Amino acid sequence: MRRSDCAQIAMMLEVCAYPKPGNVDRCHDYEDTWLEHFLASAILARPAFAQAEGTTTGMGALIKEAVSLTAVHTGGNTHFGAYILLFPLIMGDGIKGAEAVIRQTTVDDAIAFYEAFALTEVRMNETDDLDVNDPASTEHIREEGLTLKDIIAYSAAGDMVCREWENHFALSRRVADFLLASPDGKQAIVRAFFSLLETEPDTFIIKKLGRDAAEWTMSQAQEVAAGRLAPEAFDEECLARGINPGSIADITIAGIYLALREGWDWESSQTA
Amino acid sequence: MRRSDCAQIAMMLEVCAYPKPGNVDRCHDYEDTWLEHFLASAILARPAFAQAEGTTTGMGALIKEAVSLTAVHTGGNTHFGAYILLFPLIMGDGIKGAEAVIRQTTVDDAIAFYEAFALTEVRMNETDDLDVNDPASTEHIREEGLTLKDIIAYSAAGDMVCREWENHFALSRRVADFLLASPDGKQAIVRAFFSLLETEPDTFIIKKLGRDAAEWTMSQAQEVAAGRLAPEAFDEECLARGINPGSIADITIAGIYLALREGWDWESSQTA
Repeated sequence: MRRSDCAQIAMMLEVCAYPKPGNVDRCHDYEDTWLEHFLASAILARPAFAQAEGTTTGMGALIKEAVSLTAVHTGGNTHFGAYILLFPLIMGDGIKGAEAVIRQTTVDDAIAFYEAFALTEVRMNETDDLDVNDPASTEHIREEGLTLKDIIAYSAAGDMVCREWENHFALSRRVADFLLASPDGKQAIVRAFFSLLETEPDTFIIKKLGRDAAEWTMSQAQEVAAGRLAPEAFDEECLARGINPGSIADITIAGIYLALREGWDWESSQTA
Repeated sequence: MRRSDCAQIAMMLEVCAYPKPGNVDRCHDYEDTWLEHFLASAILARPAFAQAEGTTTGMGALIKEAVSLTAVHTGGNTHFGAYILLFPLIMGDGIKGAEAVIRQTTVDDAIAFYEAFALTEVRMNETDDLDVNDPASTEHIREEGLTLKDIIAYSAAGDMVCREWENHFALSRRVADFLLASPDGKQAIVRAFFSLLETEPDTFIIKKLGRDAAEWTMSQAQEVAAGRLAPEAFDEECLARGINPGSIADITIAGIYLALREGWDWESSQTA
């Protein structure tokens, strides 16, 4: 499969995987964001992915293009974090190449990225210095000569998706390795998702509800791993509390993408 | 949305709609064919749809291309019938145009179509004169000078999808009109599906299990409509009996496609 195919299939497989506590999956919609919105994004982002296959520059514009293509539905931002990981991985055809592409990002990439951000409904951390709705940001980026790499580095402290750019895509790699070592195809996606949930506080939860909520989620995931809590019950509790581990979902997509590119067979139905 | 976008979104919305008695939906996989297989087909068929937007000739080759692109997974044939409807509708940009495109089909289209059929795992009616696995078929098509329109006309007696080519896409139109008249977006897909199920014996069921099974399905759908049977119970009974109304699903996809092209808002969440 082409890289763009793998990116789309990764987005599709991630959102279908069930049960993923707190997130949209094949059995759960949110009131305003449905399974179908995530799948529509996976379908409609195609032209941006296809372009990314053929270039190592212009990442900001490509991310903006993907957001524009998928902003036609009312489901809000579905995949902004996933794009931050998928575009370098597609453009560089793997982690090593992604890091080279990231090093080459420019001030124009940073500005296009901010414009993309402004098109989404991503909840901003109110303490962020850069406000995407503030036109001064663009000026500030130009004056300081900040590249997209600089912008993402700035966010890495509080955002585990951005942190992937700094740490050799460590968590994406972990998901990919988990899948590649599992014999049971798509069934392994939920376990890979849980393996992150047990050990990593999700920064999307932290931004939305605070660190306590993220720690609670981690502890409950550990209870599930220990067999003391049913995953379905955990899922319902997350939904009731408005807890959705969105960053871990984004990283899971990147991990599935890497695994698919490295020959992982999502259709295998051998027993784990 | 472009025509190819609408075709892909139609395939996605149809397979997600729940409960659709006997068919794969967001809550049911078959053992060998899963929700994800249908969605992978919707994603991977894109290049064939995109080509179809720009031409009014070569339908057989385009259908073969779509089958080839989507035959990379092990889920078997997922959308062959849908392609028979979508390609003329895309190429002609609507029913009137589709009929013009159909009238222009050639012997080469017929041969490519048979080659496409051979790539799928569609269960053939053993009484069919033309066997796709019989190399004599190609020779026979050439000798008789049969076009794709002739081939489909030949199958129309026993196949409601093929019949759409003969009757101005009557059932596809009915689904589209149903959706366009419904205020509640994607929720209406299941009701549109049922509206066919209540009145039309599904020819895929007839080919697989016989006319009695199709009549039984129709009568049970009428029981659901009358409020005497829960749709979920009907669904489970169909799954247990191996009854899947695959032709009605294909026609539903074509109807969703037409509705999307005519401005139907699948995201509307007004009450019906």
